[in-house]
Amino acid sequence: MRWSQFYLFTTREVPRDAEVISHQLMVRSGMLKKLAAGIYTMMPMGQRSMAKLEAIVRRELDRSGALEVTMPTIQPAELWQESDRWSVYGKELLRIQDRHGRDFCYAPTAEEVITDAVRHDIRSYKQLPVSLYQIQTKFRDEIRPRFGLMRGREFLMKDAYSFHADADSLDQTYRAMHDAYCAILEACGLEYKVVDADTGNIGGKDSNEFMVLAETGESEIVSCECGYAANTEKAVTGELPSAPPLAAEEVAIEKVETPDLKAVPEVADFLDIEPSQMLKLMIYTSETEEPVAVAVRGDREINEIKLARLLGVDHPVLADDALVERVTGAPTGFAGPVGLSGVRFLVDRSAAALMSFACGANEVDAHFRFARWGRDADPGEVVDVLLADAGDPCPECDGTLQKTRGIETGHIFKLGTKYSENMSCNFLDAEGNDQPMIMGCYGLGIGRTVAAAIEQNHDDSGIVWPGPLAPFSVLLISLNPQDEEVVAATDELYGQLRNTGLEVLYDDRAERAGVKFNDADLIGIPVRVVVGKRGLKEGKIELSRRIDREKHLVDRADVVEKVVELSS
Amino acid sequence: MRWSQFYLFTTREVPRDAEVISHQLMVRSGMLKKLAAGIYTMMPMGQRSMAKLEAIVRRELDRSGALEVTMPTIQPAELWQESDRWSVYGKELLRIQDRHGRDFCYAPTAEEVITDAVRHDIRSYKQLPVSLYQIQTKFRDEIRPRFGLMRGREFLMKDAYSFHADADSLDQTYRAMHDAYCAILEACGLEYKVVDADTGNIGGKDSNEFMVLAETGESEIVSCECGYAANTEKAVTGELPSAPPLAAEEVAIEKVETPDLKAVPEVADFLDIEPSQMLKLMIYTSETEEPVAVAVRGDREINEIKLARLLGVDHPVLADDALVERVTGAPTGFAGPVGLSGVRFLVDRSAAALMSFACGANEVDAHFRFARWGRDADPGEVVDVLLADAGDPCPECDGTLQKTRGIETGHIFKLGTKYSENMSCNFLDAEGNDQPMIMGCYGLGIGRTVAAAIEQNHDDSGIVWPGPLAPFSVLLISLNPQDEEVVAATDELYGQLRNTGLEVLYDDRAERAGVKFNDADLIGIPVRVVVGKRGLKEGKIELSRRIDREKHLVDRADVVEKVVELSS
Repeated sequence: MRWSQFYLFTTREVPRDAEVISHQLMVRSGMLKKLAAGIYTMMPMGQRSMAKLEAIVRRELDRSGALEVTMPTIQPAELWQESDRWSVYGKELLRIQDRHGRDFCYAPTAEEVITDAVRHDIRSYKQLPVSLYQIQTKFRDEIRPRFGLMRGREFLMKDAYSFHADADSLDQTYRAMHDAYCAILEACGLEYKVVDADTGNIGGKDSNEFMVLAETGESEIVSCECGYAANTEKAVTGELPSAPPLAAEEVAIEKVETPDLKAVPEVADFLDIEPSQMLKLMIYTSETEEPVAVAVRGDREINEIKLARLLGVDHPVLADDALVERVTGAPTGFAGPVGLSGVRFLVDRSAAALMSFACGANEVDAHFRFARWGRDADPGEVVDVLLADAGDPCPECDGTLQKTRGIETGHIFKLGTKYSENMSCNFLDAEGNDQPMIMGCYGLGIGRTVAAAIEQNHDDSGIVWPGPLAPFSVLLISLNPQDEEVVAATDELYGQLRNTGLEVLYDDRAERAGVKFNDADLIGIPVRVVVGKRGLKEGKIELSRRIDREKHLVDRADVVEKVVELSS
Repeated sequence: MRWSQFYLFTTREVPRDAEVISHQLMVRSGMLKKLAAGIYTMMPMGQRSMAKLEAIVRRELDRSGALEVTMPTIQPAELWQESDRWSVYGKELLRIQDRHGRDFCYAPTAEEVITDAVRHDIRSYKQLPVSLYQIQTKFRDEIRPRFGLMRGREFLMKDAYSFHADADSLDQTYRAMHDAYCAILEACGLEYKVVDADTGNIGGKDSNEFMVLAETGESEIVSCECGYAANTEKAVTGELPSAPPLAAEEVAIEKVETPDLKAVPEVADFLDIEPSQMLKLMIYTSETEEPVAVAVRGDREINEIKLARLLGVDHPVLADDALVERVTGAPTGFAGPVGLSGVRFLVDRSAAALMSFACGANEVDAHFRFARWGRDADPGEVVDVLLADAGDPCPECDGTLQKTRGIETGHIFKLGTKYSENMSCNFLDAEGNDQPMIMGCYGLGIGRTVAAAIEQNHDDSGIVWPGPLAPFSVLLISLNPQDEEVVAATDELYGQLRNTGLEVLYDDRAERAGVKFNDADLIGIPVRVVVGKRGLKEGKIELSRRIDREKHLVDRADVVEKVVELSS
């Protein structure tokens, strides 16, 4: 493709609302154009990368045995009412009325529609399992859409759904889909990790996220060399090394005045102990739940997502001062387990392991030290609500957890029977009994993965495309587009390169070399071929790869072979 | 693909709302599933045909020099207000408010968004022309969606837009797009005609429709062997053979009593003349226009679409009795040109050519005969508002027009500057003057073309796929799926056929032969291969093509070669 015949206008301007680097670079390199908040047009340059990813996704999904369908974007309210999501989904669901006043929504996912199709077609266990996918536009009316394609309102997503007669069959398809996602990200040339994930409000049991690693990623991951990896939201740890007890068993509990000292580090400092020798007690509440007291070791944090799952609520919130006072009898900052009553009491394993510890005294300006479980305080329900951290022991081996960041590009779930039960999507089993089908669902963001590829692969000058997602493989630059000899040589080379099947962008614009090189760095095509008057005189052409920008002067006769080599 | 692992459930049931054959067959053959009125899910079988067409469309559009983009489905009202379509478009535009109460619509076409992109990127005539296309879901909130994919509410469409510095450049791209559409329909194996078309309310000048020929088509086409073809809405004819004058020039006009005779055939019969020797006068009105009198030869009809263009109104309507009486002084049925005054008077060429004719006398129960233009009646404005008919002379050669029916699958327009002027999409010309860009737009319905292919290619038993759009090329049927020998032979053949690159659907279901043959006829795969116990004993396999269903017994060793031959 000749640049002069292509539609590619780069810009130095960084849009004011472009907070993340992928958004900035996609706009600057002419891939993306904003139409409204969170709504973008894919321009030809962006379209090419999207199309490459789509082709990879189709190939791997087809290989997995899934079948492609296309479901409508506009879906009737009735189905969403059957699944109960019409009322559960908040304002992120774009609700629409047609000309007759009937209620519809713009689908953010399509569990209802696919379940409706399957319940009409499939009667018997003999027809199961089935696995169906689509690559279709979705809409999610984010309150504050940000980050370009990373969290847009209208976005392209591959979503797949599977239906099974039993859990083993779901496990098999789940594993096939897991492997397909790995194959996709590998085929894209991306570094990624598969992590254990929270199932969120899609419901269901097992869940994995596919994280493209990037320092700028919005998600925190803990992982171990052994292969264990989890979203921090979900991560578990091995047993923490225990903190030394404050005192021997015979030492009695003792109240200490701690005027105005509320935070753990302040109290620990005052008592001349380690924060890890203290117990931290927080009071949580939620819309549906009575207050709950939650204890964790003084140096650690509570993982509120784990807590939410444990309590079966959406968002546990810290109690306000009045509620803390009502539950503990003391202002915020002095809560402790000693004498606590009339409230459900959860104790994280890290706190349960404490032998002799300091804690709030449920009294203003006072803490206890030398407290012991059983003797001084009710041991409560021991649970895991620990927020994992770097350096924690791996739950699966003797190793140590590390923290990295990533971008969630795929998410797969074992849904179970949530939708099939609500929507009566049943089958007859081998004994002739009616059973709800067991379901899995599997999402992969197309635009999001392209954006993640840029988050992972860029430098200060621009994008550094991994080959498989690059809009073109080779950028051929003519340095002297007014010089007949250069034009003839570059045109010839352009033909030769295209004949090899490589996708070549030929910068034939009447622009200065500086402009062309800056654009080349910005748009990040993997291999660069520069034809200039000076080089040609010596029969040489300059090659470089975007990733290291190391220049190689190559004999004209060897250029094509060398470019093919660099491109593979 | 083994049928047992595919998702394909055929049905005998014809949905109650499926009025057209393509809709019936697509539902019965498991291609399509209704979600709501005019909103359908493409099931795997339908998806495969859609994907084939999309690939052909992409290939030909890319060859034409157009570049692919993807524009959002949800578009802000502001742009549609700039183009004025927000107010002009009626209820077919699905209007939506987001969570912040901002107005959006679900785009039925994308002139606004593409014009907005281009006006931000392009400054100079040197950057023109550009031609951009997308294959994207559209929504048009039809009041009574019908005909399955032929007139759905949510539908997949290829839309392209081109921008130019001058009319010659538009002509070139228009021609390239014309040729690309022809190449697409040819590549699909469809019979089609390119016809002159009315531009409708998209506006603009030249326009062509791409009609897939089918007896069941909703559009009427007139065409000549010379190549002339037009939508009847727009068609012109050569000069009609003139009807013999009723009387010599010296014969004076004469009033005849015609009690209760209003219709042309009745009056002609009564007067013992031909309807073609009469003049028919109709009074039209519209929302914006004063009444107009329109004359046409007695045996012909007025083309109201031509009339609308001529008057510059949307929908001319026949005047009611009161208005006819006010304009002509007589009840409906007796209008004529003699003594007509105080009203604009249009005379179709067919009526203007009459030498001596009969006509209403603007008086109840009375007609004139022997009337002559000039002598007895004001000749009015001679215009072309004739509805062309089979047998009319071709406007471009000595031939005769024929009528056929077709389905509009593509429509291309020379838009001119309608959008670029409203939206200030300007460029600097070679003299440095600001000019609005000249635009073209080009639509092709993806689902509609697949449906049209079925309208054109089916019989009483089902679909007869043209090869290029068939979901599979070969249907391999095992007649005895419980017989080991048959299974082994069919499995082996399945592998061999797939190795040739053919797309094979392998009916390995445990169904009776009758069910399999009925399904085979219904789903219409071009080549059928039947492996049965009896044939195998003689070393034979049965081949047939769906189009003629003629059976050929072929030696096992020759089957693969023969199938490849039949499939090409």
